[in-house]
Amino acid sequence: MKRYFIILTLPSLLFTTLTAQPITDSLKIIQYKEVAQQIVSSALKERKGYEALKNFCRIGPRLSGSRNSLIAINWAKNKMIELGFDSVWLQPVMVPHWERGTIQKAMIMNSKKFNGTELNILALGGSIGTPTEGIAANVIEVKSFAELEKRKDEAKGKIIFFSRAVDQSLLNTFRGYGSAVDQRVYGAIEGAKYDAVGVIVRSVTTKYDNVPHTGVMLYVDSLPGIPGVTVGYEDADLLSEALKEDPNLQLALQLNCKTLPDAKSYNVIGEIRGSEFPDEIIVVGAHLDSWDVGDGAHDDGAGCMQTIEVVDLFKRLNIKPKRTIRVVLFINEENGSRGAKEYGVYAESSEQIHLAAIESDRGAFNPVGFNVDTDSTKLIEKIESWLPYLKLAGISWVRKGGSGADISKIINAKLLIGYVPDNQRYFDIHHSSSDVFEEVHPREFELGTAAMAILVYLLSEEGL
Amino acid sequence: MKRYFIILTLPSLLFTTLTAQPITDSLKIIQYKEVAQQIVSSALKERKGYEALKNFCRIGPRLSGSRNSLIAINWAKNKMIELGFDSVWLQPVMVPHWERGTIQKAMIMNSKKFNGTELNILALGGSIGTPTEGIAANVIEVKSFAELEKRKDEAKGKIIFFSRAVDQSLLNTFRGYGSAVDQRVYGAIEGAKYDAVGVIVRSVTTKYDNVPHTGVMLYVDSLPGIPGVTVGYEDADLLSEALKEDPNLQLALQLNCKTLPDAKSYNVIGEIRGSEFPDEIIVVGAHLDSWDVGDGAHDDGAGCMQTIEVVDLFKRLNIKPKRTIRVVLFINEENGSRGAKEYGVYAESSEQIHLAAIESDRGAFNPVGFNVDTDSTKLIEKIESWLPYLKLAGISWVRKGGSGADISKIINAKLLIGYVPDNQRYFDIHHSSSDVFEEVHPREFELGTAAMAILVYLLSEEGL
Repeated sequence: MKRYFIILTLPSLLFTTLTAQPITDSLKIIQYKEVAQQIVSSALKERKGYEALKNFCRIGPRLSGSRNSLIAINWAKNKMIELGFDSVWLQPVMVPHWERGTIQKAMIMNSKKFNGTELNILALGGSIGTPTEGIAANVIEVKSFAELEKRKDEAKGKIIFFSRAVDQSLLNTFRGYGSAVDQRVYGAIEGAKYDAVGVIVRSVTTKYDNVPHTGVMLYVDSLPGIPGVTVGYEDADLLSEALKEDPNLQLALQLNCKTLPDAKSYNVIGEIRGSEFPDEIIVVGAHLDSWDVGDGAHDDGAGCMQTIEVVDLFKRLNIKPKRTIRVVLFINEENGSRGAKEYGVYAESSEQIHLAAIESDRGAFNPVGFNVDTDSTKLIEKIESWLPYLKLAGISWVRKGGSGADISKIINAKLLIGYVPDNQRYFDIHHSSSDVFEEVHPREFELGTAAMAILVYLLSEEGL
Repeated sequence: MKRYFIILTLPSLLFTTLTAQPITDSLKIIQYKEVAQQIVSSALKERKGYEALKNFCRIGPRLSGSRNSLIAINWAKNKMIELGFDSVWLQPVMVPHWERGTIQKAMIMNSKKFNGTELNILALGGSIGTPTEGIAANVIEVKSFAELEKRKDEAKGKIIFFSRAVDQSLLNTFRGYGSAVDQRVYGAIEGAKYDAVGVIVRSVTTKYDNVPHTGVMLYVDSLPGIPGVTVGYEDADLLSEALKEDPNLQLALQLNCKTLPDAKSYNVIGEIRGSEFPDEIIVVGAHLDSWDVGDGAHDDGAGCMQTIEVVDLFKRLNIKPKRTIRVVLFINEENGSRGAKEYGVYAESSEQIHLAAIESDRGAFNPVGFNVDTDSTKLIEKIESWLPYLKLAGISWVRKGGSGADISKIINAKLLIGYVPDNQRYFDIHHSSSDVFEEVHPREFELGTAAMAILVYLLSEEGL
C-alpha cells in the first residue's frame, strides 16, 4: 500500500509546482507515465465501474421506449450525481417503441419425423406480429439474396429460411458478423419482393449453441411488411435437416410483437468542467439502450459504466482536467439512433467546441486499439505518439478506422475515436439472453476503462 | 467453398513448379501469405484441436504417476498414430508420485463466532499428510516472509497463515502471480525455520471466489517437513476476519496426502519428417501432466492439443515441411520437470540438430506474441520479420523473452520460443477445479494453434 500512495502523490506535486510555467518534455513524459500508471492501478484494484455494472445489469434489458429504459436513465443520472459530476442533465428525444409481446412460437408441421418440433426463436426487432392465430406456410431455404432471386418463382406464399452462417474462418468476428447480418436486416424486404409471407433467419452468432440472437430488421414503405424471426444455431441446423427429409413441411409462426407510438426518452449527459479550457469538450460515449433480452451487459451497459468510470477515475485520483470531459449515454442506438442524432443536432448548434469524442460499443473485452476516424495523418500520428502511455492499459495500436455509430453523428467534432477491444467472444453473446453481467471479465472491463481514461487525460492536457 | 479450394491448390502449384530453383522474394511472400491464411481459416473453421481437447479432457486430471496420466499418455500416442504422424514413440522416465488422498479438512475451533466453520482448502502439491487424527494449533497471519521473520518468536507450534493476495494492479497477471506465489512454494520451509507446525496459504488467484488453487510446494532436507494447504480467496478473508475477533482461535487440519515411490511414466513424441532436411528438428511442445483437480484444460491440455494440431494442419493442408516437425508432450512439468530433463539429455546426445523449440504453456487464450529466448538480435529480427504472416493469426509482437519451463531444458536447441497468449483470465482458473474444458474458447484456442503452425511453417521453410 505504501508504494501506491507514494506514486499517487508525485503527480500532484508536479501539477502544483510546474503548471505556472511550461514544463519540459521530459517532465511531461514522467507526469504522463505516472498518471497513466495510476489510472491502470486504480481501475484494476478498485473495480468501481465493474461493480457499478453489476448493479446496472440488475435493472434488466433496456430497449428504447420500455419502462426499464426509463429506470436505467434515472439510475445513470443518479449515479453521475452521486459521483460528484459538475453537471448532470437529461436531453429529451422521442424514440421508437417496439414490444416483443408474450407470444413467439415456431413449430414444424406436416413432417413425419419432426412434426410438432418447436424451434427456439426470437422475433427480430421491429417485426410486425402475425395474425392472432398465426401463419403456417411451406419453407424454402436459401443461403443468400442472390439464391432467393434465382428461386423467386418458388417464394410466393412461403416462409423464407435464410440459413447462411457467420464465416468463422475470418480473424475479425466483426467481418464474420458482416458476412451474414444482411439476412437479418434486409431479409424481410427481400422476401416481400417475391410475395413471401415471413422470414426465419439463422442467428448471426459465432457460438454453436441454440440461443437465438435478435437485432434490428427493416421494412420499406413500397413493400408489405412480413414477420421476421431468428432461430438458434442448432435449431437452424435442425430445420435444414428437416427440410431435406420433408421439403413440403410447414412452419407455423405465431408472434404478438408490435410497434407502439414513439415514446419520450432521454440521453443522459454529465460532465466535469475543464480548468483551463472549459468550452473544449471531450465526449466519452456509449449507448444506454439494449436489446430486450439478457442484461445488455457487453452491449452496451459495460460501455456506459466504463465512460462513467473514466470521469470517476479523474475524481478518485484528483486529476483536474484542463478541458471539459462529458459522458454522453445515448438512447436508441439499437433501433434508430435517435439519441445520437439529437445530440448531434445539439452539438452543431452549441457554441462550445467538440474537440474529440470517444465511443465504447464493442464489448468490454481486452483493450486492443483505438480507431481514429480522420483523414489527417497528423492527428493520427499525434494519438499514435501516445502509445507508450496507452500501452500501460494493454493498447497495441492506433490506426485510421471507424469510430462508432453514436458519436459519428457529432459531425462537427474535430476528432472521432472508437475504442477497440478484442472481438473473439463478442458475437457469442451479442443481442441474446447470453449477454449478461457474468460474461464480463472484471480485469478486461477495467483495462478498457483505463485505456479510455488515459486517452481522455492526454486529450485534456494536450488538446488537438 | 469453391473459393476455398482454389486458394488451397495454389501453394502446391508453387511448390511443384518452383522448388527446383530459388524462388524470388515476392513469390515467397505470396506463398507464405497464402499458406498462413489457409492455416488460420482451416483452424478456425474446422476446430479439430478444440474437438480433440474436449475428448482429452474427459480423461480427467493427469497428475504425474497417476493412472489418469497413463491413460492420457496412451490417448495422445494413439491420437498421433490416428492422425498419420510418420513416427510416434514413448520416452520412458521415472516421475514423482504424490497422491492427494481422500481427506483434506480445515476447521476453525475455539472461536465464539466461527467455531466449527470449515474452510475450503486443498493440500498443496507435495505436502506431507498430518497424523491420522490431524493437528490443531493457533494461527498467526502474516503477509510476507519478512513479517514472519519479525514475528518468529510467536511462530513455534503455530500454523502460519500466509495471506498476501495477488497484486491485481499489475497489467500482466504473470507478474501478479509472481507477486504472491512465493508463499505457496516456500511457505512451509519458512514456517519450519521457526518451528511452525503447518502452513495455510491464500490461493494465488486473480478471481475473488472461494475455489482453492493448488500448485507445487517445496521442502528442504535440512528442515522438518510440515503440512501445507491452500485456502479459497473468500475463506482466506473469513479466516483473517476470524483471527481479528479471536486471535486465540485454533485451526484443525487433517490431510492424508502422501508421496509414493517414483513411478514409471513417459514423454509422448511424434513427428512428420522433413522432405529436405529431415535431421533438422523443430520441436513444438507442451506438458501432458496437470494438477489433480479440474481437467487441466488450459494448463496444459490445450497446449498438448494445439501442438498436435500444428502437425495435423500440415497434413490437412497437404503442406510438406522441409524440416522435421516433432511434437513433444512432456510429462511432469508441474512437480519435477523430469520429462523435460529426460528429453533434454536425449537431445544433447542426439546427432540430429534441434533447430528450434516452441512451447505452449500459458493457456489457450487469444494470441498476443512470441517470446524469443536468445541473445542474438539477428535471430530475433528474423522471427520479427515474419510478423506480417503471424499477424494473420492475431500475433502482435515478437520480442526477447523467456520461452517455457519444458523446452528450456533443450539446451542445445538453436532457438527457444515461448508462445504468449493473453493472460487476463489465466490465473482465474489455474491449478484449480475451474480449469475445465468449458473455459477454453474455441476461436482463441484455434488462433493459438494457427499462430504456432505459421511459425513452424516458416521455420521449416527458411531454417535458421
